[in-house]
Amino acid sequence: MATQRKNVGILAMEIYFPPTCIQQETLEAHDGASKGKYTIGLGQDCMGFCTEVEDVISMSLTAVTSLLEKYAIDPKQVGRLEVGSETVIDKSKSIKTFLMQIFEKCGNTDIEGVDSTNACYGGTAALFNCVNWVESASWDGRYGLVVCTDSAVYAEGPARPTGGAAAIAMLIGPDAPIVFESKIRASHMAHVYDFYKPILDSEYPVVDGKLSQTCYLVALDSCYKILCNKYEKLEGKRFSIADAAYFVFHSPYNKLVQKSFARLVFNDFTRNASSIDESAKEKLAPFSCLSHDESYQSRDLEKASQQVAKPFYDEKVQPTTLIPKQVGNMYTASLYAAFASLLHNKHKTLAGQRVVLFSYGSGSTATMFSLKLNEGQHPFSLSNIASVMNVEEKLESRNELTPEKFVEIMKLMEHRYGAKDFVTSKDCSLLAPGTYYLTEVDSKYRRFYAKKAAENGLANGH
Amino acid sequence: MATQRKNVGILAMEIYFPPTCIQQETLEAHDGASKGKYTIGLGQDCMGFCTEVEDVISMSLTAVTSLLEKYAIDPKQVGRLEVGSETVIDKSKSIKTFLMQIFEKCGNTDIEGVDSTNACYGGTAALFNCVNWVESASWDGRYGLVVCTDSAVYAEGPARPTGGAAAIAMLIGPDAPIVFESKIRASHMAHVYDFYKPILDSEYPVVDGKLSQTCYLVALDSCYKILCNKYEKLEGKRFSIADAAYFVFHSPYNKLVQKSFARLVFNDFTRNASSIDESAKEKLAPFSCLSHDESYQSRDLEKASQQVAKPFYDEKVQPTTLIPKQVGNMYTASLYAAFASLLHNKHKTLAGQRVVLFSYGSGSTATMFSLKLNEGQHPFSLSNIASVMNVEEKLESRNELTPEKFVEIMKLMEHRYGAKDFVTSKDCSLLAPGTYYLTEVDSKYRRFYAKKAAENGLANGH
Repeated sequence: MATQRKNVGILAMEIYFPPTCIQQETLEAHDGASKGKYTIGLGQDCMGFCTEVEDVISMSLTAVTSLLEKYAIDPKQVGRLEVGSETVIDKSKSIKTFLMQIFEKCGNTDIEGVDSTNACYGGTAALFNCVNWVESASWDGRYGLVVCTDSAVYAEGPARPTGGAAAIAMLIGPDAPIVFESKIRASHMAHVYDFYKPILDSEYPVVDGKLSQTCYLVALDSCYKILCNKYEKLEGKRFSIADAAYFVFHSPYNKLVQKSFARLVFNDFTRNASSIDESAKEKLAPFSCLSHDESYQSRDLEKASQQVAKPFYDEKVQPTTLIPKQVGNMYTASLYAAFASLLHNKHKTLAGQRVVLFSYGSGSTATMFSLKLNEGQHPFSLSNIASVMNVEEKLESRNELTPEKFVEIMKLMEHRYGAKDFVTSKDCSLLAPGTYYLTEVDSKYRRFYAKKAAENGLANGH
Repeated sequence: MATQRKNVGILAMEIYFPPTCIQQETLEAHDGASKGKYTIGLGQDCMGFCTEVEDVISMSLTAVTSLLEKYAIDPKQVGRLEVGSETVIDKSKSIKTFLMQIFEKCGNTDIEGVDSTNACYGGTAALFNCVNWVESASWDGRYGLVVCTDSAVYAEGPARPTGGAAAIAMLIGPDAPIVFESKIRASHMAHVYDFYKPILDSEYPVVDGKLSQTCYLVALDSCYKILCNKYEKLEGKRFSIADAAYFVFHSPYNKLVQKSFARLVFNDFTRNASSIDESAKEKLAPFSCLSHDESYQSRDLEKASQQVAKPFYDEKVQPTTLIPKQVGNMYTASLYAAFASLLHNKHKTLAGQRVVLFSYGSGSTATMFSLKLNEGQHPFSLSNIASVMNVEEKLESRNELTPEKFVEIMKLMEHRYGAKDFVTSKDCSLLAPGTYYLTEVDSKYRRFYAKKAAENGLANGH
């Protein structure tokens, strides 16, 4: 590994989501919701979820193992491992310590990093921490590894279709194809109660949906404003949406992504940025007199700005929406699943491009940051990352369950949350070879996992 | 602030612990324990604890506010703030977001960092993250701020006297009096179930005391071995306990600190290090044939190595034990309270010295690391840090409560944990001026805090 530290960023990625899902259209009908409420209202197509044999620990074991195998990384070559998650199975023992099982058997226990926590933002914190480590005096020349893993489930009711589940692993080091533009970064952190989990023995959050959406947009505006200011100081010219090829958003549901991008366009309008042409100005002019607070509530503004934003959205955002629309809200993994969608869809033309990402975690913590892409060197190349993630096949090979089965599983999971002294069905028939699964939680709450054998015993080298 | 980045480390510290405590001797008698069980067996003198008006959020608000005030730091000059804690009040919303209240009112919301979590190790992770940030390409020239805050409480029984509570705030930047020797650092991370918190609606952990002690010592051995190897590669000579002036340990109870230091001495013996003289060799020789596993169980070895270590312990460890013995286990704050004790006791003679710290969090995660001290420049000087922390006065001004009152408070706190819809007594008569306290948790689990007025209204500038 190079001892210089230029172009620190993401070298490789792997994504895992459960093979079990439900179509939003089916769920809509089952829930007696009006037609289009989930598919158009939320903008979602499908939702992935864990059955009783999967959880955030098994998913992250699967993602990390798969990444190390597919890139032939010796576990001894990892010097830092951190996890972002808001799915709490234990209030003290980190998910990172479960992942140490992979490294301990290779004799590597000298791996810094723990779990970073704040709602959906923990993965971004872990990612920044890992990049900073590589750039710091304490870097020892080894790889960093970041894992985002979450299972988003909601109580029966209007929030239930906004669930999802996934784990993403990212390898960090110098000479990366996905490089951080460290100076083009802005955060907005505040004390708010938009979405939180104070009911400790329930997996479900307390959510004020309307407030959470406003908090998201307030954070977005604040980050964009600060980022534009920093860019101007740095580059001596104004930033606008024209200065990035793609915008990637934390995606609780696609409708919010549409609104968010439109909000950036409205920001460019109020900043009189060059991205806004005369016809757009005309459409948005009636809203220039709105106060900041009013602007978050105005349906007319939302409509007008989405209309103006539409062609830009199709070009700069739509390619990022595949996995979030198909899997749902993956909390900490959500933003990186959107980014993975972009790599999947556009890896051939991304070299040289700037991509701006917006990470949001309720509570609230948010950062907008910029990545600069280059093709990279195999195996750490954009095309290989896309090929290894194999998104299309993973999406297509999923099993659609019925709403009745989905509800039954959610009930079982409710019952199992925080429970001890049970064995699971150990039914791994739907899981892909190489997938980890939960077998037992013993009388002392200790969790045990097994790994489904690789096809034709390939994992054993036969 | 300097834009160069030499000597990155701790510029300033503040410590807060509750003004309420109980003498271990009194608790021993009340519990019907044999005389000396807590005071000699555990090695503890006194235990601090939160009453119903204090918690990890209020303590951290107090510590951060006090640090900023005493060092006249403009809240706008903070660019990163992270918290280490294992006391979970909310499973999604970070403690960091509560602390944002201090910064939001000054118009500063652009502050990176969230909470780091793994048992007692989270504070060390937060500290490393903050130092790495200052050394990274994304540093923007502002200060980092690290907060360790915990309330350690145990169910009635043998673990109860190992509680404690405190918050510590540390300001991070270049040109510090307390500098990280980044290359002299070793970690040991593993998947174990020694102490964990799977019972989500209880504040109490599940603890296997004997296993946890062994895991601590295994991690200590592993870290020391790796650190010695790294040192030898770097410096071309062997490391021994003679190469650091002081050793600071994560301190669940003082007896474990005594055992731990003795274990390092035994390590030096097995490594044939220069710190071990002929007489010591003779005393330890009978144990050289023990297997690694046996060595953790041998009482005779423990006794012999503690005897050999005694003069070194008095010199290199005893000055670090004041606050942990007086306040108890402060989880993430424990190691830094031990370090604060050293600054309090020895600040006049620390310049030029190396101090080795050992951080342990069950689960498990551990790091041994080295600090190099210099006097620094006022206000960021060792003597000013000691003066601002004002440890002696804080310890002396505490109120000793009766065991009956202590048990009554623990019962109330059990009942309040995870609860909503209550107001506290708002009785802040025992709190020092400027202390934050909990007033209410409303029907939506939202928490409200107030600040006790500063003496003579000084905080308002009168």
